[in-house]
Amino acid sequence: MSRQAILGIDIGASKVKLALVFKNGKMTGGNSFPVPEGAKPEQLAAMIGERAAALTARNRVRITAAGAGVPGHIANDRRSLIYAPNLRWKNIAFTDLLESELCVPVVLENDVNAAAFGEHRYGAAKDTGHVICVFVGTGVGGGVIVDGKLLRGTTGNSAEVGHTIFRPGGRTCSCGRSGCVEAYAGGVHIPEHYAQLGGKRGLKAADVWELAARGNRRAARVVSDATAALVTLLVNLQTVFDAGRIVLGGGVIEHLPGLYQKVKEGVKSHLCGHWKSRVRIVRSRLGANAGVLGAAALARELI
Amino acid sequence: MSRQAILGIDIGASKVKLALVFKNGKMTGGNSFPVPEGAKPEQLAAMIGERAAALTARNRVRITAAGAGVPGHIANDRRSLIYAPNLRWKNIAFTDLLESELCVPVVLENDVNAAAFGEHRYGAAKDTGHVICVFVGTGVGGGVIVDGKLLRGTTGNSAEVGHTIFRPGGRTCSCGRSGCVEAYAGGVHIPEHYAQLGGKRGLKAADVWELAARGNRRAARVVSDATAALVTLLVNLQTVFDAGRIVLGGGVIEHLPGLYQKVKEGVKSHLCGHWKSRVRIVRSRLGANAGVLGAAALARELI
Repeated sequence: MSRQAILGIDIGASKVKLALVFKNGKMTGGNSFPVPEGAKPEQLAAMIGERAAALTARNRVRITAAGAGVPGHIANDRRSLIYAPNLRWKNIAFTDLLESELCVPVVLENDVNAAAFGEHRYGAAKDTGHVICVFVGTGVGGGVIVDGKLLRGTTGNSAEVGHTIFRPGGRTCSCGRSGCVEAYAGGVHIPEHYAQLGGKRGLKAADVWELAARGNRRAARVVSDATAALVTLLVNLQTVFDAGRIVLGGGVIEHLPGLYQKVKEGVKSHLCGHWKSRVRIVRSRLGANAGVLGAAALARELI
Repeated sequence: MSRQAILGIDIGASKVKLALVFKNGKMTGGNSFPVPEGAKPEQLAAMIGERAAALTARNRVRITAAGAGVPGHIANDRRSLIYAPNLRWKNIAFTDLLESELCVPVVLENDVNAAAFGEHRYGAAKDTGHVICVFVGTGVGGGVIVDGKLLRGTTGNSAEVGHTIFRPGGRTCSCGRSGCVEAYAGGVHIPEHYAQLGGKRGLKAADVWELAARGNRRAARVVSDATAALVTLLVNLQTVFDAGRIVLGGGVIEHLPGLYQKVKEGVKSHLCGHWKSRVRIVRSRLGANAGVLGAAALARELI
């Protein structure tokens, strides 16, 4: 008899990762393939079906369900995708497509929500009922667990933490509004902010960090704003959610020297004194596997 | 046979309100009595016991349980009070005291959380699963309903919305931290802010509002900051919770001319465009009865 597993699918704007996830949280696979430029939903579903068939055959595993994280807004039935800007998909019954390819029930979730759920089930916030996860990469995304359940809100558009306001009337964000946390701390926004202050164009976030370390005052201001934006975001989330753990992850947190420590110290110092909070702030433990693991865990729970 | 009801208790820093709440949400009583200066928990519990006995006898009602809203931090067992600064009470097994006076099971809740739950069960957010309530009085308090349940967090210290940061490094708040929403929009903070900018001391919030309407520039700045603090708070909460309804209440919202409309318009205009949100913003419907009704509703649900 073949072993059973759940298929975890993590669909990004540029690549798709698949993994077989077992009941104990161990996974097999985890390789990714590129999303073809301008891929249609039917085409991507077919590619996922083919790769999944190869993966299960190679590992002699039978899948009983699948969970897919998608970079977009997922309806509350967790079956249809309302909007995925990076894939340029709108109103797609994507679960139907995947189910006819995979022949098992499928559940959809926003990719960052799925990653947060992964950290809650198998990673840095295991056994913690109330969890705030913030991932800082190109943009700033998040997921919140309330009493063991993913916060989804009325329309499935919750935990858009990067678009909370850090500085009213401040920098214009990619969402079209102004002053968002993301406009100061997102990986693509850090060099843009530096250029806006009169610095050189076309740098990367890491370059701005290095310039700041060497004493460049414009770069130092950008670094200071990015840090303050993340501290403000986390203080505000903790003041509202009273979480047991805050998980920080994503490329910007992992690769910019000193950022994680500075944010952690800033939050801790603001939350002490009259405002006692025993929350633990930790790094993401699952890294790039959080999405597939979380999507699979959701499928295990909901199907 | 006497009718059955739940006793709703709303304990404030200066007065206590009692009401008999029936299954359909109708209530009887609702009068309040003053909290004696420096009242001890045993003393207040005994006073509540006496008044409750008179209320039930007068109305020929038998109470089956009681819920009490208390202005402080309630432990997650909902039986003990961790800290109530205005009453100067610390670590009190207050449920034990009330139960021995009332001879029915009692549940405790933070007073603002209880009021939010009241609006959710019987008031402006009836039949709405995800609700944000913000009450602006002396301070700025709030309560959040997630999927029909009160958000309590890890330690019962959630939804302290007035102490989210509006302006990093800004005005010192009564909590000892800086830049809190409350430091700009709380009823006692509005005149303090005006005085801090060089205006006359000892005014009330309504006086500052009137000065602003007459063209006083310092007062106009205070009004503009108070409005922006509330708009920022609500935008941030909605961006995270994706609620179906936002309920605004409290003396400052009810009595300062134009504030409610300005806040509502500010939030709506920020949430439109790329960031579509269909949340409805409404005024509190239960007013000063939200607390007793909510405390009773919690007792009905939890006991």
